[in-house]
Amino acid sequence: MSFVQDHYPAEYAQCYGCGRLNAAGLHVQTRWDGERGIAVYRPRPEHIALAGFVYGGLIASLVDCHGIGTAAAAAAQAAGQEVGEGFAPRYVTASLHVDFRRPTPTGVELELTARPAEVGARKVVVEVEVAAAGEVTAAGRVVAVLLPPAMA
Amino acid sequence: MSFVQDHYPAEYAQCYGCGRLNAAGLHVQTRWDGERGIAVYRPRPEHIALAGFVYGGLIASLVDCHGIGTAAAAAAQAAGQEVGEGFAPRYVTASLHVDFRRPTPTGVELELTARPAEVGARKVVVEVEVAAAGEVTAAGRVVAVLLPPAMA
Repeated sequence: MSFVQDHYPAEYAQCYGCGRLNAAGLHVQTRWDGERGIAVYRPRPEHIALAGFVYGGLIASLVDCHGIGTAAAAAAQAAGQEVGEGFAPRYVTASLHVDFRRPTPTGVELELTARPAEVGARKVVVEVEVAAAGEVTAAGRVVAVLLPPAMA
Repeated sequence: MSFVQDHYPAEYAQCYGCGRLNAAGLHVQTRWDGERGIAVYRPRPEHIALAGFVYGGLIASLVDCHGIGTAAAAAAQAAGQEVGEGFAPRYVTASLHVDFRRPTPTGVELELTARPAEVGARKVVVEVEVAAAGEVTAAGRVVAVLLPPAMA
């Protein structure tokens, strides 16, 4: 199975959240099914807010990187390409919003589903849901923009 | 110097972002000056989006925990208490928003300034700015609510 993040050029694959080349990172991996980005993530034992509940900053990080990966896949598809044919376009986060609807329990794999709400060449908006044991615990929105020259 | 997070009861001091008892955590520390929450944080080498720039998910985590710490201090003050007299009230995040205004450079200590915009007994809204080398690079908003019974 191929993940969006496998196709970032090496110089853009060092992200703490999703870079395959960041040894200490979270390694978020986004699979694109043609309409949605899908990811699963098992929090580390230290990723707690308090005993039994996942840390919100981790959830925000997952929403962020999975949103960006989904933006890349959606933009590639809109341009008539397929992720895996070449390098994935590299978006960065202009804004991130997360609503924590209920506490997210530890001990289960989190399931993230991301849907592109707006796909432009330079800006993509993605809506992300986070579920634990089949129940949505958080919902987020990522505004992704193409990597600006200042960061290239 | 005393930090808000020093005054959480032990069972609420395990947060990955700000818990003094989370050995692997970030250890965000909020100082309350009577009007604002102040924090400084030096990202770890692995906390990058790409070489030279800080990871947005880390920034979101700092905004989150510093916003919550500031909410606790502001709520304590509004109730006529001083942080340090007793336990700090424990808020959790209902929603988190971050605008990434420009890339945040690595290699410098980040400075966070948080201002309570709305202080109620059960809900506190905090606005947070993140600056690097004197320049604001991100601005966030945290809606904090008292720890719900489901998490207590």
